[in-house]
Amino acid sequence: RMQNSGSKPCSCPSLKLREVASMYLTMVAAFLVILVVALQGSVPQKSDFPYKVPLDPQGLLELSWNVSYPEQAVHFQLLIRELRFGLLFGMSDRGEFENADLAVLWSDGHNSYFGDAWSDAKGQLHMDSQQDYQLLGARRAPEGLYLLFRRAFSTCDPKDYLIEDGTVHLIYGILEKPVPSLQAINISALHGGLQRVQLLKPNISIPELPSDMKSMEITAPDVVIPSQETTYWCYMAELPEGFPKHHIIMYEPVVTAGNEALVHHMEVFQCTAQFDSFPHYNGPCDSKMKPDRLNYCRHVLAAWAMGAQAFYYPEEAGLAFGGPGSSRYLRLEIHYHNPLVFKGRRDSSGIRLYYTATLRPYDAGIMELGLVYTPVMAIPPGEHSFVLTGYCTDKCTQLALPAAGIRIFASQLHTHLAGRKVVTVLSRDGRERQVVNADGHYSPHFQEIRMLKEVVAVFPGDELITTCTYNTEDRSRATVGGFGILEEMCVNYVHYYPQTQLELCKSAVDPGYLHRYFNLVNRFNDEEICMCPQVSVPQQFYSIPWNTFNRDVLKSLYAFAPISMHCNKSSAVRFP
Amino acid sequence: RMQNSGSKPCSCPSLKLREVASMYLTMVAAFLVILVVALQGSVPQKSDFPYKVPLDPQGLLELSWNVSYPEQAVHFQLLIRELRFGLLFGMSDRGEFENADLAVLWSDGHNSYFGDAWSDAKGQLHMDSQQDYQLLGARRAPEGLYLLFRRAFSTCDPKDYLIEDGTVHLIYGILEKPVPSLQAINISALHGGLQRVQLLKPNISIPELPSDMKSMEITAPDVVIPSQETTYWCYMAELPEGFPKHHIIMYEPVVTAGNEALVHHMEVFQCTAQFDSFPHYNGPCDSKMKPDRLNYCRHVLAAWAMGAQAFYYPEEAGLAFGGPGSSRYLRLEIHYHNPLVFKGRRDSSGIRLYYTATLRPYDAGIMELGLVYTPVMAIPPGEHSFVLTGYCTDKCTQLALPAAGIRIFASQLHTHLAGRKVVTVLSRDGRERQVVNADGHYSPHFQEIRMLKEVVAVFPGDELITTCTYNTEDRSRATVGGFGILEEMCVNYVHYYPQTQLELCKSAVDPGYLHRYFNLVNRFNDEEICMCPQVSVPQQFYSIPWNTFNRDVLKSLYAFAPISMHCNKSSAVRFP
Repeated sequence: RMQNSGSKPCSCPSLKLREVASMYLTMVAAFLVILVVALQGSVPQKSDFPYKVPLDPQGLLELSWNVSYPEQAVHFQLLIRELRFGLLFGMSDRGEFENADLAVLWSDGHNSYFGDAWSDAKGQLHMDSQQDYQLLGARRAPEGLYLLFRRAFSTCDPKDYLIEDGTVHLIYGILEKPVPSLQAINISALHGGLQRVQLLKPNISIPELPSDMKSMEITAPDVVIPSQETTYWCYMAELPEGFPKHHIIMYEPVVTAGNEALVHHMEVFQCTAQFDSFPHYNGPCDSKMKPDRLNYCRHVLAAWAMGAQAFYYPEEAGLAFGGPGSSRYLRLEIHYHNPLVFKGRRDSSGIRLYYTATLRPYDAGIMELGLVYTPVMAIPPGEHSFVLTGYCTDKCTQLALPAAGIRIFASQLHTHLAGRKVVTVLSRDGRERQVVNADGHYSPHFQEIRMLKEVVAVFPGDELITTCTYNTEDRSRATVGGFGILEEMCVNYVHYYPQTQLELCKSAVDPGYLHRYFNLVNRFNDEEICMCPQVSVPQQFYSIPWNTFNRDVLKSLYAFAPISMHCNKSSAVRFP
Repeated sequence: RMQNSGSKPCSCPSLKLREVASMYLTMVAAFLVILVVALQGSVPQKSDFPYKVPLDPQGLLELSWNVSYPEQAVHFQLLIRELRFGLLFGMSDRGEFENADLAVLWSDGHNSYFGDAWSDAKGQLHMDSQQDYQLLGARRAPEGLYLLFRRAFSTCDPKDYLIEDGTVHLIYGILEKPVPSLQAINISALHGGLQRVQLLKPNISIPELPSDMKSMEITAPDVVIPSQETTYWCYMAELPEGFPKHHIIMYEPVVTAGNEALVHHMEVFQCTAQFDSFPHYNGPCDSKMKPDRLNYCRHVLAAWAMGAQAFYYPEEAGLAFGGPGSSRYLRLEIHYHNPLVFKGRRDSSGIRLYYTATLRPYDAGIMELGLVYTPVMAIPPGEHSFVLTGYCTDKCTQLALPAAGIRIFASQLHTHLAGRKVVTVLSRDGRERQVVNADGHYSPHFQEIRMLKEVVAVFPGDELITTCTYNTEDRSRATVGGFGILEEMCVNYVHYYPQTQLELCKSAVDPGYLHRYFNLVNRFNDEEICMCPQVSVPQQFYSIPWNTFNRDVLKSLYAFAPISMHCNKSSAVRFP
């Protein structure tokens, strides 16, 4: 459930726990013998920790948390179902166990200890000089041990992870044997893993829901989850014939009990209206048996990823579906993540849509910001963080947006496998005014639709600048823009209202200037890059002898050269 | 006097002041009514605050301080000779009053207040949310009011200045009228100014001085300081005939009482041995009457700048002077800074050299690191921070340094007017190992010889990389390397022992690659830069139509192109 805005955040369930906390805070020593206290009558309420996610695929570790913006802190409740000799829980840049910030609970066989620790580049653990995971309490319950602790977003300790908006890579490790000391823990021998979440959920008030609201479940029909690590399951659903125009005003996940750790993400797509009918299908999305026509079901109606809550449209707007000019066919896609290769698990998960016939004042729309899907935007190989930027220019917003502007309320960031960071900023009169959405630990494996903390108003003449950072250290040739999984994209799908005809506001470098670049590289390096018309841009990029100069000059070119804008209407017609 | 290493730092002169401090620290309020306490028998000793500098040209404000490395804090004692209605004291990036970190003492006519404040980009004052200038005490004395306060090097408050090694720009302002509140202080109407100091003096133990030590004063002969803001005064001195080889083992400033705020810096140079005699001269260095031959007196024997202490050579080494092959003639240069244009002030300041005939095991030497004085290294106009790097390569140190290596114990950074930062790092096997000297707030107006915190051992095969950052925002054409005041240098004069034949270990970009750059810019921009042999490199740089692309590609070139090394012996012969 979403946190109510303005309500006082509940950080600790009881006064007794507070006392434990202040006891802890007055201690000078860097660790503490845990007193597993049985607190009567102070069982934390579910609403104290509104967000929940399983950490491991078996669901032995379950993390709940809340966010206090006034305190600038996160309160964690970790349920450990079968505690052996302790566990590690923490955060790191991209989920690695090196250079991680960790809370460690460990036992030497006699006593249990809790401490704030960090791991160095070699994975060796060290006690933190400043203890920033503050233990608030520990409680035994029939289902396992509950650990309660608090972490400020920012601690000013250079060894600590800075909790920011966007994706956070949580890591966990289970201690199977007693350890004499923190330093003796061998990270590489741990049973552990990572879980991605948006830790800092926005503090948004839930709009009032109309009395005539109905709901519809788009769920898988008792699917047997394949016994393989990754499955994308496709299932076609259908709206009733003659279903009139409605507004979707909310949706939420429906996850089959017991499968919480397997259902990684789910999306509902609407098919294109250009075909009257679509075949029924229920099977893996990559199956040879999947009818081709399912590729025409790409208009996102709803998207959910692990750890996300219900999604609410703002009071003034809803997402139109049904009615003339809109397909009756929907495609449900479920990503099952089954690393332990469980067999025979049955699943009926999906998404429950809440909709109303009493249309709200505005239709919501989705607009694509970022880079055009074209090979002219490329990333050299071997780069740790190479940056590409796409523009939705003042000229395009001037032409296409209404005078009263639009309101962006949610955003879904998108790149392919090399993407590491994505950020969109709003610029007005040449000055950056507001961050629309930023993810400094973006992962292509965790693409949620995220509600924005604050609705962003965009007016004609504003500029929306989307910047993506890529890592190509494991690649030996250039990565060009395109649709392929090994090609790249830089996209922010923004959800906004009122809907306009502008579906696409993206850019790419001017191809003439790219041609000058190929010429320049050619001459400077005394190499021969074929500039014959039959050689494609990707081929030209692949033939560049990459060195720091050719890399840096490409960067300079992207920063300097004029851009070519795509400022497109829904019908793929460019604005004049 | 230098702080003894290992001695416990004396932060507060008395227990009473400590009590004031803890009273203060327990207060939650962001400001405090000052209790001007008359503390009997607790007058701070001079040695408690070994470093001293006048802040203003009249000497009304006098700052003393000490540095506690164990506490990572500076203790300040500020003497205010004629307190009116308060004062501002603080630090900022380059001495500006905007974006400054300030301790403010102000009076509303009834009460006095002290607080930690900051100024925004418009110069408006704000109280700091975290009070990091900690008032330790205030004391009235016949000479004025003493304020004692403490500041940690790093406070973790983003509004605070980070105290680092190298130059710190101190600022001060005097309140001439009562002010109702901190926010009411109008910075632009203040009588104020700036003073540059090295705040974090190294904590070095003073070597034992020999019993046969003698001293010699090289001082100005009762000069009348000209009534103009800036004067460089030149005075020729002479060693006795037949003066044998000695080792200078220490020197210290001799500043005429009352002129502490006027004598900005002083240097003693030895003349070249190639001429048997030099004319006597006593007058401004830029006078038409100054004999040309004085330009041959450039070998630095001693250098002092305001705020610096005595300079001690390490026990094993001394700076050779006297004896055959060494000129008897010395040039004293004094920079008088007289912004209030005092008339008729007389001065006999200078430097006192301490030397011994009992030669130490090693002669000290000076080596030039950084960039060759050549126009091929240029900075585009309009740059906020453009970086140039000079290399003393592994190949050169391999050839020129003894197997046992050399020890660098002091360093003097040097650029012309556009220089903003200078840093030299030692690299071994391609990895940065140690910072030799760094100044992130470097000013060309404050060029001291600085003792290093730690002696740096350099072995054959090591690399010394010197990086300079320039600001050319006020310039409309490129700034090329060279000797002129509007040309630039990037130099670190390192003082080391044992002396070797290597006097110069510097680099510049390969001229052939620079030629390719001019060609490339020419073609890419469809411009015509004359490449005829009679056009000089500066002329080619001046004719470039500067834009971000040409700027970025120049950066890429400097990062990529091969370098040409100057690895020179004393006699200006290159090592083979």
